[in-house]
Amino acid sequence: MPTKTPLAPAAPFEPPVRVLLGPGPSDVHPRVREAMAQPLIGHLDPAFVGLMDQTQELLRYAFQTDNKLTLAISGTGSAGMETVVDNLVEPGDAMLVCVNGIFGGRMVDVAQRAGAKVTSIERPYGETFDPDEIRQALKAHPAKVVGIVQAETSTGAWQALEEIAEITHEAGALLLVDAVTSLAGVPLEVDAWGIDAVYSGTQKCLSCPPGLAPVTLGPRAVEALMARKTKVQSWYLDLSMIMRYWGGDRFYHHTAPISMNYALREALALVASEGLEARFARHALCGQALQTGLASIGIGLATKAGNRLPQLTCALIPEGIDDLAVRKRLLADWGIEVGGGLGPWKGKVWRIGLMGHGARPSNVTLFLSALETCLRDLGVDVPVDASVKAANEVFDQAEQPAGV
Amino acid sequence: MPTKTPLAPAAPFEPPVRVLLGPGPSDVHPRVREAMAQPLIGHLDPAFVGLMDQTQELLRYAFQTDNKLTLAISGTGSAGMETVVDNLVEPGDAMLVCVNGIFGGRMVDVAQRAGAKVTSIERPYGETFDPDEIRQALKAHPAKVVGIVQAETSTGAWQALEEIAEITHEAGALLLVDAVTSLAGVPLEVDAWGIDAVYSGTQKCLSCPPGLAPVTLGPRAVEALMARKTKVQSWYLDLSMIMRYWGGDRFYHHTAPISMNYALREALALVASEGLEARFARHALCGQALQTGLASIGIGLATKAGNRLPQLTCALIPEGIDDLAVRKRLLADWGIEVGGGLGPWKGKVWRIGLMGHGARPSNVTLFLSALETCLRDLGVDVPVDASVKAANEVFDQAEQPAGV
Repeated sequence: MPTKTPLAPAAPFEPPVRVLLGPGPSDVHPRVREAMAQPLIGHLDPAFVGLMDQTQELLRYAFQTDNKLTLAISGTGSAGMETVVDNLVEPGDAMLVCVNGIFGGRMVDVAQRAGAKVTSIERPYGETFDPDEIRQALKAHPAKVVGIVQAETSTGAWQALEEIAEITHEAGALLLVDAVTSLAGVPLEVDAWGIDAVYSGTQKCLSCPPGLAPVTLGPRAVEALMARKTKVQSWYLDLSMIMRYWGGDRFYHHTAPISMNYALREALALVASEGLEARFARHALCGQALQTGLASIGIGLATKAGNRLPQLTCALIPEGIDDLAVRKRLLADWGIEVGGGLGPWKGKVWRIGLMGHGARPSNVTLFLSALETCLRDLGVDVPVDASVKAANEVFDQAEQPAGV
Repeated sequence: MPTKTPLAPAAPFEPPVRVLLGPGPSDVHPRVREAMAQPLIGHLDPAFVGLMDQTQELLRYAFQTDNKLTLAISGTGSAGMETVVDNLVEPGDAMLVCVNGIFGGRMVDVAQRAGAKVTSIERPYGETFDPDEIRQALKAHPAKVVGIVQAETSTGAWQALEEIAEITHEAGALLLVDAVTSLAGVPLEVDAWGIDAVYSGTQKCLSCPPGLAPVTLGPRAVEALMARKTKVQSWYLDLSMIMRYWGGDRFYHHTAPISMNYALREALALVASEGLEARFARHALCGQALQTGLASIGIGLATKAGNRLPQLTCALIPEGIDDLAVRKRLLADWGIEVGGGLGPWKGKVWRIGLMGHGARPSNVTLFLSALETCLRDLGVDVPVDASVKAANEVFDQAEQPAGV
């Protein structure tokens, strides 16, 4: 019989009220939250199998692909990264990884653990890669797979992919893209651009709780899977088995996270109802309004101009202002969460996310107004509502409203 | 701009009404479902850090351990298996795996993928291992780790562990236990029995949705982690990093599945309020009533007597009765899900789960009554309510009521 004393009965956890304007998770639409609370059904129930089919169709729309192998891995975005890398490389395979932030760096680590011979090329934080650099790197170090991040969550940098896909294919390699922060926030055309393998996460522009990783693999990537000589090192992430569960024969692999799959299905249905074009426009407009508002009160942006994601803005912390003091006050007084800098940008930038359901004008002006107050109280000379006015002008000039 | 046409707007998914009496997932308590629907907070939010601390305390109670390294892996039970195996073995390490069902077999596969030299010993489905077999196997094949399943989800077999822990330690090995289906359903004394590493799942006797894998590692296992010469092959499941996120310095590793962690905290709080002793008694009583009810109408049990789990009963399908026809009717007419047999037991047994919130007298009698009706309609001679009466007698004779 148990020897340890039970803990005192605890009341249900009540999360504090938050406005999630960091690098993710983002605020979740009420319809998605309601889905999470639905009673469970079995993971082999015909109704659940139907839900998986719908989810695959909805994911194909979000990824803009016809890839059959399109599904959600039962882990977070990082598990998605590991899935795609582990399945595409075998020990000894060469992989080129483009590193311009934390997540490119993580991909190097994951690929090395999978036994790949990794060559990496680097760009400073906030910059992106030119197609020519990739071409030269592939000449010097032929690779089976090229890994690159479309939206670097650590820097807000937006990587163009079309030309890089061409160059990668000319060199006979597969293009693997990290779309954790980009999916459903900025355009991603898996088929039109010829991307071979993509992974993403649910808690960014899909506005679903974290816990699943959408992935899609095209024909060349599937061919590479089929040609493997060794087992994938991870049983849990082995696509040769997972695709049999999501595919026609529904072969039991592991128990799918039922409620998380309910949530993903609703989040994707919301994406489809809104339409990607409108969704991208909404993210673009909110990002532009935020960045204009920040500029209007003299706050610089850390990410190089021309490469800035609308859904994740890295704002330079003004000289003399304490990073943590501001973030703690935003959280305590307004319930606003923004992210701190990572790596060389630690203490130097705030990462402000406007993702999915969170990409709304009212969040832009709420944040700017709160930030202004914090800065004024710390002695910075900021006219009242200057940034809010600048942001609202952007919204007023927009052809389509972006909601409230 | 997106080229594919958006799908037609879809109404929210409404799961059919089910009574989950299979091998998991089990029915979830309303308090846990409500937790899933709470708004998100950030994974580094002080309130979330507090929730992680509470979860660790509650997990230590459920595992009956003081192990510091007690936390929830961000994947399902199978990810828990892979975590513990991948972290404890390095390429070339010897591991002994005891196989008496699907999940022991899975452990062999996972360990081989991790580069372990695996020796396995086998027992037929429905049987368990004697301590002497383990002693002899370890003499013939010394190992760093011995892996064994406490509650085989494929067979309903209940493995005794105390003596095996002693033998394993005498041989200088670590004992790794699969407690996916046992945790919070039957006694598991991690500290008192000296178990070195355990993984579990959330969707069995914890009655939480699937998606997290509680694990605990004791001092000898942590020593083995610290003595590793190679990196863990999985970045996502590398405990040396995950423990820094759950531990004191809250070092960012991956974005925790926020809502799933809300749910686990509530499910564990319910375990603590009920108390393990009462919870084990409730499972034992419901299992006994079900098994008595089945016997009263001549249905045999596939698992060897003396080794039967109360929370998972493998009932032999009567001669001439079609497995799928019965399971489909149970689902269609009563909403009841039970599991089919796996491996050599496919088509031969039904797996009936009474787990966590589902282990209630009303579920026992509902199932027996529905099964009786199915059997009578298929021409089997079963007196009306015979099994229900037999089960109710068990409940009537119990010292403590087990709820409704």
